[in-house]
Amino acid sequence: MSSTKSSTKQTALLIIDVQQAFNDEAYWGGNRNNPHAEENIARLIAAWREKKLPIFHVQHCSVNPKSPLHETNEGNAFKDVAKPTAGEPIIKKSVNSAFIGTNLQEQLEAQGITNVVVVGLITNHCVSTTARMAANLGFQTSVVSDATATFDRVSYDGRRFSAEEIHEVSLASLHDEFATIANTVSILNSLT
Amino acid sequence: MSSTKSSTKQTALLIIDVQQAFNDEAYWGGNRNNPHAEENIARLIAAWREKKLPIFHVQHCSVNPKSPLHETNEGNAFKDVAKPTAGEPIIKKSVNSAFIGTNLQEQLEAQGITNVVVVGLITNHCVSTTARMAANLGFQTSVVSDATATFDRVSYDGRRFSAEEIHEVSLASLHDEFATIANTVSILNSLT
Repeated sequence: MSSTKSSTKQTALLIIDVQQAFNDEAYWGGNRNNPHAEENIARLIAAWREKKLPIFHVQHCSVNPKSPLHETNEGNAFKDVAKPTAGEPIIKKSVNSAFIGTNLQEQLEAQGITNVVVVGLITNHCVSTTARMAANLGFQTSVVSDATATFDRVSYDGRRFSAEEIHEVSLASLHDEFATIANTVSILNSLT
Repeated sequence: MSSTKSSTKQTALLIIDVQQAFNDEAYWGGNRNNPHAEENIARLIAAWREKKLPIFHVQHCSVNPKSPLHETNEGNAFKDVAKPTAGEPIIKKSVNSAFIGTNLQEQLEAQGITNVVVVGLITNHCVSTTARMAANLGFQTSVVSDATATFDRVSYDGRRFSAEEIHEVSLASLHDEFATIANTVSILNSLT
């Protein structure tokens, strides 16, 4: 095995909460940005599978029975574009960070994975929190700008922020401190 | 001891990275918002001390010798307004989250602390990351909007965001998901 191939194998794709509950845009704040995020996630998943690289499917399982992300609700299911196939690990979590209450860190370390590429929903909550913790735990972390998305949000003082503004400020805060911000094409090119 | 008093005693003040290095605004991006954050932090510290409530001083100790936050550099020192007094624990960290590579969680739990009030620098990096992890670890978390601050930042695509915009979007992302956003006066009033 060449050193290049060995290095590539150490990069895992972490797919965060690509679940049907998020199809109900109004519930989460509306006006979602990046409508093509799922297409890009699908392209990344296809490339990772083709190269037999490690994929981790993170699934939010709310402890609140009223949440559309609770396991008894249909919204808990993965979207079709991001369904796990046999052998791909599913990490079930109940908080934003995929590293809390799970064995994700242990699974990554057991496989010698040093780099993670984070995609999914939503940019400012579970994606950002997981990327921040991944970086702080010592993983080289990338976040894919066009394979994540968020919704409008009303703040503590009643001020409304647009999904696009929240998305971009979230990435600005991750950039150069926690993660490399890349787009889908550049990540795909880095695999070849 | 009354139940009210007992409940108040379970609320810790987490003071994040109020260190001299941050006096060099230009180094961190310039145009800092909330110039009165340190005054508000000092008022909160005074109130916590008066009521003999738990205070934790978090100190960033960069592993990079060139960083002004490295322990060999003057900037590593606490600002005068936030100097620990005897008996107040100091949590030294080398990443953004005060919970990674430290025993902060164990110290909080050992004292039966269930609630944390987070203040300090900077809103979108160490304050946000620590607040997110505190919430995900199960602590009732408040972030004090006028006792935190940040700097302008240039993003991955060269776009510049103002400190005030980053600060407010950071708080919007914490609000109702990770933390209660409060101001200094409301926190002080809640202690009485």
